[in-house]
Amino acid sequence: MLIVADENIPLVDSFFGDFGEIRRVSGRGLSAAEVRDADVLLVRSVTRVGRELLEGSRVRFVGTATIGTDHIDVDWLEQAGIRFASAPGCNANSVAEYVLSVLSAYAEKRGLEDWTELTVGIVGVGNVGGELAHKLERLGFEVRLCDPPRADLEGEDGPEFVSLEQALACDVVTLHTPLTRDQQHATYHMVGAEQLAGLTSDQLLVNAGRGEVIDTEALRARLDEPNPPLVALDVWEREPRIDPSLVDRIWIATPHIAGYSLEGKVQGTEMIYQALSKYLGLPVRKKSGQFLPEPALSKVAFTSAAEEADAIRVALRLCYDPRPDDGRLRTIMTGSAEERAAGFDRLRRNYPVRRECSSVTVQLKGSSKSLQDSFRAVGFKLKI
Amino acid sequence: MLIVADENIPLVDSFFGDFGEIRRVSGRGLSAAEVRDADVLLVRSVTRVGRELLEGSRVRFVGTATIGTDHIDVDWLEQAGIRFASAPGCNANSVAEYVLSVLSAYAEKRGLEDWTELTVGIVGVGNVGGELAHKLERLGFEVRLCDPPRADLEGEDGPEFVSLEQALACDVVTLHTPLTRDQQHATYHMVGAEQLAGLTSDQLLVNAGRGEVIDTEALRARLDEPNPPLVALDVWEREPRIDPSLVDRIWIATPHIAGYSLEGKVQGTEMIYQALSKYLGLPVRKKSGQFLPEPALSKVAFTSAAEEADAIRVALRLCYDPRPDDGRLRTIMTGSAEERAAGFDRLRRNYPVRRECSSVTVQLKGSSKSLQDSFRAVGFKLKI
Ligand SMILES: NC(=O)c1ccc[n+]([C@@H]2O[C@H](COP(=O)([O-])OP(=O)(O)OC[C@H]3O[C@@H](n4cnc5c(N)ncnc54)[C@H](O)[C@@H]3O)[C@@H](O)[C@H]2O)c1
Ligand SMILES: NC(=O)c1ccc[n+]([C@@H]2O[C@H](COP(=O)([O-])OP(=O)(O)OC[C@H]3O[C@@H](n4cnc5c(N)ncnc54)[C@H](O)[C@@H]3O)[C@@H](O)[C@H]2O)c1
Repeated sequence: MLIVADENIPLVDSFFGDFGEIRRVSGRGLSAAEVRDADVLLVRSVTRVGRELLEGSRVRFVGTATIGTDHIDVDWLEQAGIRFASAPGCNANSVAEYVLSVLSAYAEKRGLEDWTELTVGIVGVGNVGGELAHKLERLGFEVRLCDPPRADLEGEDGPEFVSLEQALACDVVTLHTPLTRDQQHATYHMVGAEQLAGLTSDQLLVNAGRGEVIDTEALRARLDEPNPPLVALDVWEREPRIDPSLVDRIWIATPHIAGYSLEGKVQGTEMIYQALSKYLGLPVRKKSGQFLPEPALSKVAFTSAAEEADAIRVALRLCYDPRPDDGRLRTIMTGSAEERAAGFDRLRRNYPVRRECSSVTVQLKGSSKSLQDSFRAVGFKLKI
Repeated sequence: MLIVADENIPLVDSFFGDFGEIRRVSGRGLSAAEVRDADVLLVRSVTRVGRELLEGSRVRFVGTATIGTDHIDVDWLEQAGIRFASAPGCNANSVAEYVLSVLSAYAEKRGLEDWTELTVGIVGVGNVGGELAHKLERLGFEVRLCDPPRADLEGEDGPEFVSLEQALACDVVTLHTPLTRDQQHATYHMVGAEQLAGLTSDQLLVNAGRGEVIDTEALRARLDEPNPPLVALDVWEREPRIDPSLVDRIWIATPHIAGYSLEGKVQGTEMIYQALSKYLGLPVRKKSGQFLPEPALSKVAFTSAAEEADAIRVALRLCYDPRPDDGRLRTIMTGSAEERAAGFDRLRRNYPVRRECSSVTVQLKGSSKSLQDSFRAVGFKLKI
């Protein structure tokens, strides 16, 4: 069996080596000739997959190691009898950790000793929003969930949902919806002048969903009016051609990397490996845990003198702090629009290895049950 | 022997318990009656010590657990034959760690991967400035030292000194001079409109010496002009009645706590214990290390995957990050001038326990010699 795989998918050899021969290719500009004799094609979002690429090939299985599928002509694949798998939710934990870290920096900035005093409105409660809500609730935050499509679907069976307006009244509002247009509950410019007018300087607005969910012009205008909210953006309208004057006006600006933990990327590979195993009727023998390299930071030990809020904040920020990413993005906001766009892409391509909290062992001697629970809720490995 | 001691001096019983009876008193408003029968008086900066307090008493030794001696009438004590000791440099390491932490946050903000790219001008190279210079040089920074009084005194024998103007041309300028007036090289408003005019938005100005060294009005005006420098202030003119509009305009604002590590405070006690032992002709048996409590964070382990700049930054910030202190100061900048001043004092009085890097063991497996040297330079305990 021949597997053609984008060279930027991590750990392809480890996961797929037993299935047959692997040919690594550059995903950008992949040609039909390169995949003609393949049985399996593994891509990332830079490769457009459809009739043009695959007609006449032997390919029977396409996997994308990404949560998005915009680059895949799913209908055509189905028609052509080609099995397809993506990796929904593979980086949900990575994004949830990004938001937690932003939240802890925000609590610090506001001079709060106890970050759980902040109410959090989560707009879009799918893989990412759901993971975040789960962590926050375990940590003791008051969380309000806004997800009209789920509310419609689940009705009484689902959790309690609030309106967008109610979510926007929380201390922190964090957006995790996809981009949708021309349909009920469309998210395009869902947060516009009207919604922004209601936010105050006591609030934080985070967007780690899709840039187009916020109306950039309206946001920029709001930030020039009195008492603007603090804003943290990981996603932008017109990426990579993002608006430098918006970067200037917001608190934390990162280049769409909230989901870029190594664990998240490797889980993308794992999920398409699982799907291929299932398709081939083979047992799932491998787990990403076996292949992850040693993290740079392996352990941190707290004593009984540790105070809960401090310890969690410190440990979380050990794993991921958004401010170095923010600093790097600001440095490339000079030069022409071309240069800025190239810089944005470069930061994403050359992103440093980032590990999730699960890679760090936290040793807690003589600590309270509540401290242990909080560390577990964030996702650390505990040694008591 | 009766020892009368300010109740806010830490570990008095541990250090002085063997010498005789200890009477703890409130240092503010201490009366002559309370010290009349004492042999030894131990104070902090809140107690004015001179003829009024001590005439007619048995006191033969006065110790202040502080670096400053403005509250002590040293001439009168000498005349009266009372031995006097203070604790110069006891918190120099604490302030040096504060500046390193600000520096690492600044490198992050500027998107620098290697913080040693920053040149640092140190103005005032005494206990604090000297300790900071020592650490920075070991870390590989280019450091410029400005200290005209030392330059005059030491001439060819001393290190190479630069002018204030040259120090102000560094990427980071950090002030560690005392406040002096009406003398050569007086520091009052030494950094005024002219000096500030030359600073640009590529520079950081830190003051952790004395607030009056910078002309507040001129600084505020400069910060409203184009391309102002970033500013981090730990000391202020007219403390505790600091200017809220200056807080608004600067990057990091803290309430004169750079020297507030527990180690620094305890070393103040240790230094006057040493002086009293010497005065009494007794051996120095005790060291502050024996009495320091377990730190909240005891250990952090890095693996060979650790990158130098990252690891140092992360470990340093684990011990001390100025931003929570900044957040707290900003929260009290509301209300009347009285309330703000009371808030400033309150933050100092109720300062949380802060530990120095020496309290943390850093485990480095398979790390480079250079990484080990850097961790040592900052002051961590190493386990290799
Ligand atoms: N910043 C990053 O690095 C990063 C990483 C992962 C995902 N994302 C983005 O985050 C978004 C969410 O990802 P996911 O994996 O959770 O997707 P998902 O499909 O699992 O969840 C999306 C949720 O949003 C809800 N939703 C749709 N319209 C809504 C509306 N108008 N109001 C409120 N909720 C609405 C849906 O019902 C669904 O529950 C996606 O756009 C994805 O591209 C970004
Ligand atoms: N922020 C804090 O928490 C904190 C903590 C400790 C000390 N301090 C302050 O920091 C300052 C320095 O403390 P230290 O213990 O290092 O004092 P120090 O006396 O040991 O050193 C001060 C140095 O400044 C030099 N100096 C004097 N005038 C100068 C000038 N015009 N230009 C350049 N240098 C000049 C002196 O020659 C001396 O070397 C003091 O004012 C002290 O009150 C603040």
